[in-house]
Amino acid sequence: MSSEYGKALKISVFGQSHGKAIGVNIDGLPSGEQIDLEELYAFMARRAPGKSEFATKRSEADMPVFLSGIENNKTCGFPVCAIIENKDTRSTDYAGLSRTPRPSHADYTALLRYGESVDLRGGGHFSGRLTAPLCIAGGIAKQILARRGIFIGAHLSSVGTAKDEKFPLYPTKELFDEVAKKELPVINDELGKKMAEQIREAAAEADSVGATIECAITGFPAGIGSPMFDGIENRMAQAIFGISAVKGIEFGAGFESSEMRGSKNNDPFRIENEKIVTETNNCGGILGGISNGMPIVFRAAFKPTPSIGIEQKTVDVKTMENTTVTVKGRHDPCVAVRAVPVVEAVAATVILDMLLEESEVI
Amino acid sequence: MSSEYGKALKISVFGQSHGKAIGVNIDGLPSGEQIDLEELYAFMARRAPGKSEFATKRSEADMPVFLSGIENNKTCGFPVCAIIENKDTRSTDYAGLSRTPRPSHADYTALLRYGESVDLRGGGHFSGRLTAPLCIAGGIAKQILARRGIFIGAHLSSVGTAKDEKFPLYPTKELFDEVAKKELPVINDELGKKMAEQIREAAAEADSVGATIECAITGFPAGIGSPMFDGIENRMAQAIFGISAVKGIEFGAGFESSEMRGSKNNDPFRIENEKIVTETNNCGGILGGISNGMPIVFRAAFKPTPSIGIEQKTVDVKTMENTTVTVKGRHDPCVAVRAVPVVEAVAATVILDMLLEESEVI
Amino acid sequence: MSSEYGKALKISVFGQSHGKAIGVNIDGLPSGEQIDLEELYAFMARRAPGKSEFATKRSEADMPVFLSGIENNKTCGFPVCAIIENKDTRSTDYAGLSRTPRPSHADYTALLRYGESVDLRGGGHFSGRLTAPLCIAGGIAKQILARRGIFIGAHLSSVGTAKDEKFPLYPTKELFDEVAKKELPVINDELGKKMAEQIREAAAEADSVGATIECAITGFPAGIGSPMFDGIENRMAQAIFGISAVKGIEFGAGFESSEMRGSKNNDPFRIENEKIVTETNNCGGILGGISNGMPIVFRAAFKPTPSIGIEQKTVDVKTMENTTVTVKGRHDPCVAVRAVPVVEAVAATVILDMLLEESEVI
Amino acid sequence: MSSEYGKALKISVFGQSHGKAIGVNIDGLPSGEQIDLEELYAFMARRAPGKSEFATKRSEADMPVFLSGIENNKTCGFPVCAIIENKDTRSTDYAGLSRTPRPSHADYTALLRYGESVDLRGGGHFSGRLTAPLCIAGGIAKQILARRGIFIGAHLSSVGTAKDEKFPLYPTKELFDEVAKKELPVINDELGKKMAEQIREAAAEADSVGATIECAITGFPAGIGSPMFDGIENRMAQAIFGISAVKGIEFGAGFESSEMRGSKNNDPFRIENEKIVTETNNCGGILGGISNGMPIVFRAAFKPTPSIGIEQKTVDVKTMENTTVTVKGRHDPCVAVRAVPVVEAVAATVILDMLLEESEVI
Repeated sequence: MSSEYGKALKISVFGQSHGKAIGVNIDGLPSGEQIDLEELYAFMARRAPGKSEFATKRSEADMPVFLSGIENNKTCGFPVCAIIENKDTRSTDYAGLSRTPRPSHADYTALLRYGESVDLRGGGHFSGRLTAPLCIAGGIAKQILARRGIFIGAHLSSVGTAKDEKFPLYPTKELFDEVAKKELPVINDELGKKMAEQIREAAAEADSVGATIECAITGFPAGIGSPMFDGIENRMAQAIFGISAVKGIEFGAGFESSEMRGSKNNDPFRIENEKIVTETNNCGGILGGISNGMPIVFRAAFKPTPSIGIEQKTVDVKTMENTTVTVKGRHDPCVAVRAVPVVEAVAATVILDMLLEESEVI
Repeated sequence: MSSEYGKALKISVFGQSHGKAIGVNIDGLPSGEQIDLEELYAFMARRAPGKSEFATKRSEADMPVFLSGIENNKTCGFPVCAIIENKDTRSTDYAGLSRTPRPSHADYTALLRYGESVDLRGGGHFSGRLTAPLCIAGGIAKQILARRGIFIGAHLSSVGTAKDEKFPLYPTKELFDEVAKKELPVINDELGKKMAEQIREAAAEADSVGATIECAITGFPAGIGSPMFDGIENRMAQAIFGISAVKGIEFGAGFESSEMRGSKNNDPFRIENEKIVTETNNCGGILGGISNGMPIVFRAAFKPTPSIGIEQKTVDVKTMENTTVTVKGRHDPCVAVRAVPVVEAVAATVILDMLLEESEVI
Repeated sequence: MSSEYGKALKISVFGQSHGKAIGVNIDGLPSGEQIDLEELYAFMARRAPGKSEFATKRSEADMPVFLSGIENNKTCGFPVCAIIENKDTRSTDYAGLSRTPRPSHADYTALLRYGESVDLRGGGHFSGRLTAPLCIAGGIAKQILARRGIFIGAHLSSVGTAKDEKFPLYPTKELFDEVAKKELPVINDELGKKMAEQIREAAAEADSVGATIECAITGFPAGIGSPMFDGIENRMAQAIFGISAVKGIEFGAGFESSEMRGSKNNDPFRIENEKIVTETNNCGGILGGISNGMPIVFRAAFKPTPSIGIEQKTVDVKTMENTTVTVKGRHDPCVAVRAVPVVEAVAATVILDMLLEESEVI
Repeated sequence: MSSEYGKALKISVFGQSHGKAIGVNIDGLPSGEQIDLEELYAFMARRAPGKSEFATKRSEADMPVFLSGIENNKTCGFPVCAIIENKDTRSTDYAGLSRTPRPSHADYTALLRYGESVDLRGGGHFSGRLTAPLCIAGGIAKQILARRGIFIGAHLSSVGTAKDEKFPLYPTKELFDEVAKKELPVINDELGKKMAEQIREAAAEADSVGATIECAITGFPAGIGSPMFDGIENRMAQAIFGISAVKGIEFGAGFESSEMRGSKNNDPFRIENEKIVTETNNCGGILGGISNGMPIVFRAAFKPTPSIGIEQKTVDVKTMENTTVTVKGRHDPCVAVRAVPVVEAVAATVILDMLLEESEVI
């Protein structure tokens, strides 16, 4: 198994939800990059629990400790290892779950894969908590990219059947910043009210609800990427599915493209301000796996939080009999709300990895 | 760049559409596996052009020649290299396309990435023709898997706005075989008629239309896969985006999950015939990146063929002026029709790779 | 850059000598493996400084803290991250070394590669101290292997021009254990005296001396490995060169083979106790990259510790003028003495990686 | 298994000695590179058999056919696949060898690894013939490197106990060219006579003899490489062990360093012509895995050709009884003679890979 992704920039995530610490090792960052820790903490705070009515009340002090690779707030060229200690955990909530696996959690498959020794307290290594280290890596990557005019933003593009508007053709850094500050990170606050309503309704019924997140990357140079298996879509998809609860990804018009005619889906080229652009961006900034200079745009589908307070059918894996389980503990009614910065984080590492891989020596 | 995927089983694709040959190198196949060449040719024939009214009239004799790795119709443990010579090509159709790039093709991004020396005749290395070598690798993988009770099938699940029915909870090998034989590979022929209609209409207007393909894998053992970045979804997505025109992928209920409540999306466990199963399969057979024993199910979104006979806006990259382009040549009005076996092929290689990676030595 | 090796078992090392902590992330260990921490600490103590007259007086409390992957002294299937905090450091000893680089250290090349921000205190990420995390990974791997009858031992096979005897054709676990206990880990204590003499003489002159280490692996099953670029030699060599000061590696008779006739170098097969063995082991247990069931044997050449107390010629990289440098601080006169367990550790991880990669599922 | 190496530049070798064809797939070459085919053929001719008294009389027409990636003698950015058809083979010479394995060949280990289906005719995929495709890749890499002032040369540095002189501190391209033209590629022809004598003597007795090859790379920029497991030594070693019969590798003074004092082995820095150089090059141009601007120098140890005409002890793997085998067929008495260009070829691909990996985009 490999809790790692990336080529020129390798991101390795470790830790279990209720173990001693979780963390990330980042190998391949360029040397001499200034890291603004305040900005990093602010970024990480966007995914921290307990901050809004839409998030679990579990309070984490998810502040990272850097063990290596950063000296005097600068990368020194060596692997950056950062950890977050686990403190506020209520392991008793999870006792016995490997015997009566929770539906649509990894309890059952983890048991098959790792046997009795598997540590599933709090979801173990499968926990959404493991997205915090991803935010460390991504927060650093975002700063390195921003310095080169590359910006990354995301918003909650739908919750259940309620939809936010889409990113405009050219999303700005200001829009990204504005969305990031909101309790519910949406573009259109009117639409956001209906989205919030769906979360509240689900929560009121001890239920949960799914959502989608749209992410855009602007300023990424044209001509970066590769055909076939190593293009932007391949690598972004491989990494984004590493975020728990993601069950789908689409680039540009994505599944909508599958309903279109070519004459509508094709993005006409045009000269604008002496640059080659496209009039629409149904391809999401990617043709043949390679960037075309337009914003890179993708959407990820998040399933509803599998932990719900309603009694559910399950089995007892020891006696092989049908039984039920009611999941206790504190859970986000919509896991995607806090995943918005996580999607940005993962996107930032993938994009930085692809830039680092480009060779200019020869 | 890397036109390669896989870990224990590496698939490297090479060749340009109008070069001397295209082919695939397959490194890591188990030794001593019987390869039924007739069955392989029959599988490959499913994606060959010129076979149906829905496919381009370009006739390829896409029969592979095995250069290595197979002796006496058995794998001998060493890399299997197979090539297909390029014969029927009309390169003049493509002259000048790197100067006035076709919308939503890779012409423009390839020019940026590879410079003037790039070989874009017939789409070069970006051509859908490169899916033929994938079918060699996948056809072999399918035979190896079938011998172990693992079957893979796919169907055209939608064309434009017309939809086929979905695979049942437990698709059978018989269903896979039946669908594979059809000119339009759908489950429900009545629904298929409307899908065919959308293709014909697009073709009649020199246009093209998008589609989706649903793929299912049955008999895959439970407990295979990994959390985070190396699970079934990660690896399948990385590979499937290697098929040209794919712009989205979803597992199980996928984007539909994002509209659901957890109480509906969660798959209840149940004992059935002394086995643990789930009553629904919204997770697509995958929890935490690991198989749960249910069929693995995913859908890929294909954009409409970008080559259409209608005049389109483009630019002259030399003079930097707006102009138009009309794509000549023979093209599939719906690229997904012939991609059905390609999706099966890629899925088979990914699944075999994951099996080969599992260690039982210790 | 990548401070990582391995395929099924990935070992990532992080940390700088005088940073907050050094450590290792181990991804891919089988689940449910008991880890005897006392045994691990005892193994690590073999490389710890300050233990013998041949080692630097720097005292490290190199005891690892496990952050993840091990619960109740058992691996739980998830990545194992272990760290060692840095305590006893005298950074002032190293001030200015990036300006007047020490001969045969990485000071100069690190400056070129990473620029002014590089952290070279105590050697930074290049320090021999980074071999401590390798011993954590290797100590764990050794325990997992020993449970399957695979044993790994090493000895100081030469110091300067003084040589120990070689491992016998079939080295035993008892021999490994006996050597490991010695202050100077040699097979023949008489010969060891002359080796010790060379270390003492070098130390007395504020100089250092090179050495070789021979390593043997017994009980490794026959038929594991691969031809060409992924065989035992390829992977072992790639990893062993990761130990600082290694400048050469040879398998079996190695460079001696290059002086031999084929009739002498070839290892005749013979039936012994109903097993196929070879009468000699000039191939070091490896033919065509694959194990033949005989002990795997290799030797690594260690250059003399580059840090010596004698004044040396260097340059001032700022003024571009010739100057001199005298290295202060505490240093091993023969870096290889403490590297004996490190070689065992790296060998153990490579061997375990290769076992884990073998597939028995199909 | 993986008959592949490289990261930014992937080299995959396929084929069996007596199969339909052998070949190489090269993924990652920069686009627009002119390839002088005459020069490539001349380079390949240096390893071709039948050219000198020191080489087997087997005549191969080892001329490559390019299937992809090169158009109008220029790389077009896509994978370059080249094949060599197998023609002159005498398979009957090898019948039964998987039953009575030849000592120090891979017959026995291949049987264990791949089972009865393994194709061992002519050595199968283990054959020295597989070094021909490596020369295609390396010949191309050499041309790309030469254009950037990076030159690679090698010579037979010893045969049996007879030694050539070593490369001077700064070997020139002229020296490389001069050596390459010789029937026995040595620096000092007087010494070469004694080396030739050892080959003739071995041949006369139906025996074989080992040798070493020294390789130097000049003009490689300083500051390229990485610490720990991804440095020049790690990657060069991993690749060089892919050449059949290699049993050892050392960089700079290598094993000699292990006999030296630090005061002698350390390479003093000095300003020369306003550049930083070292007075000696015992480190072989590499410190901490990173190039220091001096020539990169390494030596590989080749065992004697295992195929000898003398009767040898072996076993019958079916009856499990002792027996003998006499190897028939045509064989080089000193496999290293023809391996000189192969070492250059592999070195060139590794060096080019490392250059391509360096990022200048950010």
